Amino acid sequence: MRTRFVLIQTSHAGNVGGVARALKVMGFDDLVLVQPRWANVLRREETIQRASGANDVLAKTRVVETLDEALDGMSHLCATAMTPRDFGPPTLAPREHFQALLATPEPPQGVAFLFGSERFGMRNEDVYRCHAALSIPTAPDFGSLNLAAAVQLIAYDWRQALGGFAPLPPAPPRQQADAQAIGGMLTHLEQALVAVDFLDPAAPKKLMPRLNQLFNRAAPSEEEIHILRGVAKAMLQVAEKARR
Amino acid sequence: MRTRFVLIQTSHAGNVGGVARALKVMGFDDLVLVQPRWANVLRREETIQRASGANDVLAKTRVVETLDEALDGMSHLCATAMTPRDFGPPTLAPREHFQALLATPEPPQGVAFLFGSERFGMRNEDVYRCHAALSIPTAPDFGSLNLAAAVQLIAYDWRQALGGFAPLPPAPPRQQADAQAIGGMLTHLEQALVAVDFLDPAAPKKLMPRLNQLFNRAAPSEEEIHILRGVAKAMLQVAEKARR
Repeated sequence: MRTRFVLIQTSHAGNVGGVARALKVMGFDDLVLVQPRWANVLRREETIQRASGANDVLAKTRVVETLDEALDGMSHLCATAMTPRDFGPPTLAPREHFQALLATPEPPQGVAFLFGSERFGMRNEDVYRCHAALSIPTAPDFGSLNLAAAVQLIAYDWRQALGGFAPLPPAPPRQQADAQAIGGMLTHLEQALVAVDFLDPAAPKKLMPRLNQLFNRAAPSEEEIHILRGVAKAMLQVAEKARR
Repeated sequence: MRTRFVLIQTSHAGNVGGVARALKVMGFDDLVLVQPRWANVLRREETIQRASGANDVLAKTRVVETLDEALDGMSHLCATAMTPRDFGPPTLAPREHFQALLATPEPPQGVAFLFGSERFGMRNEDVYRCHAALSIPTAPDFGSLNLAAAVQLIAYDWRQALGGFAPLPPAPPRQQADAQAIGGMLTHLEQALVAVDFLDPAAPKKLMPRLNQLFNRAAPSEEEIHILRGVAKAMLQVAEKARR
């Protein structure tokens, strides 16, 4: 499935750079600018600075005059609009829409995400062409998302919907100590606590059950049990010395 | 549950503003800066510009000298780190971790998200204090997320995990036309297509079943059926005139 991001009448060069970076970080690279404010936006210093290494995305970016020229190969258009338009496409939350879209029997072969200008958003006539209007759920009293931030969120949700990237190489699973190992450690620790005069065997005050719960929640590894037993051993040794 | 965002040794004022905006848009307002590069970062022009109206968040933001001062009331610390550290907390994807965290029998009462400096990320000793290290799944060959973009993604995922914001007021459900209405419209349209000499009743070539499938996929509303019937009527009328 092809994915394209289309920025319409973007006015801040920094945002174009930020968008290029936002796409690359989510593994997308198809960016089209329709009538950007600056004809040379792809070569401006702010753009390149905010792109922060996503130069290959900038190098591939097309600048066109009309929305139509941006839509070759795209069969499903998602507007991004904070306010629903009468007669426009249904307004949907991105995450839900992406799941539904990919679950349809015939998912679209090209998906384009359209973003309007920073100040005015999308024009009605551009929204009318779209299959869905995505509305990122924001605080009711402050929906003012930065353009590059909005692109970042959509790119993230779409990438996740497409299956995401393999997570980091998994760390070797922690060898959780079993209840027997925790029990043995607690017995050892109890002796040590008695030895250092913290625990009075005549009035134990539920100390050991409390520690048992604490260590249950901590779910120590076998290695950590060794560390704790080492501490208990050291406590016993120093108490022994002190008694001489 | 309290939520806090902690930026450690942030060097770009613009990022602090972008972060304030990213938080406000997701309904968060607790931001703490540990040793920012600029002591006056909250009053710098770039900060205020990039905050773009999130001034109340900036006004509440605390600037402190040590990470410890940033952690009052926080019982679960999430580092954000691209690379796992030996002996550090488990590295997890945010979306999965947030679900698991909120599903635990005793969810934490205060959750802090820690972000290191733009150039160096988090220090090992700060990561070691954390309960989890969040790794945003990014393209394998380009994981360079802008700081404000990373905060935006985490704030979004966390807000969604907390239940999200109510979506936009739902549009009144579209009155889908039933199969009977589509059938009636198609009969009407068929007459019109014959009348304008597009459809030859002697050699219909499966035109009507094709149109039936097209309109099934389009799932027209009752209003749209009226429009289509109006078109058919106009076609019939003009054909009638032409015949005179």
